[in-house]
Amino acid sequence: MQEKKEAVAVIGAGSWGTALAMVLADNEHEVRLWSHNEAQVQEINQFHTNKKYLPEINLPELIVGYGSLSDALAGIKTVIVAVPTKAIREVLGKIRTVQNSPLTIAHVSKGIEPDSLLRISELIKEEMPSELLNAVVVLSGPSHAEEVSLRHPTTVTVSSENMAAAEEIQDLFINHNFRVYTNPDVIGVEIGGALKNIIALAAGITDGLGYGDNAKAALITRGLAEIARLGTKMGANPLTFSGLTGIGDLIVTCTSVHSRNWRAGNLLGKGKNLDEVLDNMGMVVEGVRTTKAAYQLAKKYNVSMPITFALYDVLFNGKNAKDAVDVLMARGKTHEMEDLVNILEERNLED
Amino acid sequence: MQEKKEAVAVIGAGSWGTALAMVLADNEHEVRLWSHNEAQVQEINQFHTNKKYLPEINLPELIVGYGSLSDALAGIKTVIVAVPTKAIREVLGKIRTVQNSPLTIAHVSKGIEPDSLLRISELIKEEMPSELLNAVVVLSGPSHAEEVSLRHPTTVTVSSENMAAAEEIQDLFINHNFRVYTNPDVIGVEIGGALKNIIALAAGITDGLGYGDNAKAALITRGLAEIARLGTKMGANPLTFSGLTGIGDLIVTCTSVHSRNWRAGNLLGKGKNLDEVLDNMGMVVEGVRTTKAAYQLAKKYNVSMPITFALYDVLFNGKNAKDAVDVLMARGKTHEMEDLVNILEERNLED
Repeated sequence: MQEKKEAVAVIGAGSWGTALAMVLADNEHEVRLWSHNEAQVQEINQFHTNKKYLPEINLPELIVGYGSLSDALAGIKTVIVAVPTKAIREVLGKIRTVQNSPLTIAHVSKGIEPDSLLRISELIKEEMPSELLNAVVVLSGPSHAEEVSLRHPTTVTVSSENMAAAEEIQDLFINHNFRVYTNPDVIGVEIGGALKNIIALAAGITDGLGYGDNAKAALITRGLAEIARLGTKMGANPLTFSGLTGIGDLIVTCTSVHSRNWRAGNLLGKGKNLDEVLDNMGMVVEGVRTTKAAYQLAKKYNVSMPITFALYDVLFNGKNAKDAVDVLMARGKTHEMEDLVNILEERNLED
Repeated sequence: MQEKKEAVAVIGAGSWGTALAMVLADNEHEVRLWSHNEAQVQEINQFHTNKKYLPEINLPELIVGYGSLSDALAGIKTVIVAVPTKAIREVLGKIRTVQNSPLTIAHVSKGIEPDSLLRISELIKEEMPSELLNAVVVLSGPSHAEEVSLRHPTTVTVSSENMAAAEEIQDLFINHNFRVYTNPDVIGVEIGGALKNIIALAAGITDGLGYGDNAKAALITRGLAEIARLGTKMGANPLTFSGLTGIGDLIVTCTSVHSRNWRAGNLLGKGKNLDEVLDNMGMVVEGVRTTKAAYQLAKKYNVSMPITFALYDVLFNGKNAKDAVDVLMARGKTHEMEDLVNILEERNLED
């Protein structure tokens, strides 16, 4: 008889948590999908659907909804945390109180905590006592949840300071439709995932202004360059930003009209101000928070981030979007890569 | 009185040559736009239009059409060569016969010559006697000609072994709408521009198969990685592939339905074979030629290029497009950047 596969807990039953639960179930893992919403738990268990987030999908029976965190975690070694950035500390606080053996925690969130300026994996290490934490892993990449739930081909990257743990997460998820690569550069993977939303907002603005594909491609490329400058200064490997969690995720987010951040930027480009845009969206636009955090990071690390700064002025200082883009375009002629090369040279001098 | 600005010759009056001539004219240069088509020369001079290539545009009066190459080149120091890759040797042969003083030649073509496997700047150096050649410059980047002719914001890169010459070309073209960066990495700039058309064909295939945005972003990212592997093995700086002539141009070409290469791939993905596709397109699909050249380069330099090889099988060995994509997706799990890191380490060992 074949050995039964490891059960995995997925914390958070939004579209991405649910889609990832489906990948695990496709790989024959029992999946305990926790939600704080009791009605959603019942829907999952009675009807095998989660219509609010993935309206077209029938869930595999190996996915079981849990409303009790202690039940969901009983005997579990691996937890996938798939809640919004701002809810992570609260959820970890709850896990801490019901858990008494070490966990590998893989998170799939894309953000930087405001004020503390912590990456999500740093925040998890701060929040979880070391005796309850085996390892922290991040899973990130270009992945609309809807497409994953339809089993369309998708690739993602896992990263951790503990590469054995990253490879365990890779083994849990990898299958024919869902390809998982490893990369040891946690800083690069987390910074790329978080900051792409800034560039998506800016890409929406240039599209809203009617500036065309050349301008958008330039913006994405220059945006990637400034993300790479900041990340490299923070210790990332610059090559990570050329990978799935860098340019890959940036492409999906900037070229899809389904992206909330792109849509918000598009409205800004058409002349609406931030309050009107946020009213119109009716939900959190992660890139707005991240622009503030990245602005603070750029000042802290003394890195030139002209797109982030221009967007900050549009969002928080009432600057006209067209004027901001025109200032960006009018920057002096420069060598394409000199800033990044300088940062790498500085790092070598410090070594 | 202000000094009169340098006159520049643009060889080739297709959409890109004409759009670049407009940028030079906007910068108050007299532009001699050469075409082998006498009717086109007359249209340019009588009506200030070039309707076959840029139907909506009125050309500035500083652009003058020339049918005679020796007239166009009289007293000229700088030539922009904007003809298709396969016409370059012939045009250089004509220039050679009428020219007797050294020229700076800037080319704007994206390709690799089949069989010789030469980059365009190598081909120019082979074709022009050294006493007639001051320097060779390449200008490349994400730039639909139509958008440039509408003066939409656009960014490009110039590169040369002679950076003073590259900066002269930068000075000729740079203005508020058309930003020009420099990069000393000629190999990287030329390889990125040429090989993007392969990935555009492949992106068209995944779109034709209905595989979605996640798959396309993965393909573009993995495509960039294999272009970077080959280019780096050939001596390029890997960072160039993260710039305008790498990922920037790749984004424009893979996400625009106006791209000929994408459209050809799309038809392949929908089940047509190469002959049907080429009949349907009715014009040259540069990526088909480039796939053959890149396949040969990959073998010559012993570099893994799975997307190029899969596309080669679809184009020239009748392989089914869906099977080819499925084989790509099923590749073993790997570290995201290990191949490129290995190539850089090899190069360090050889240094």
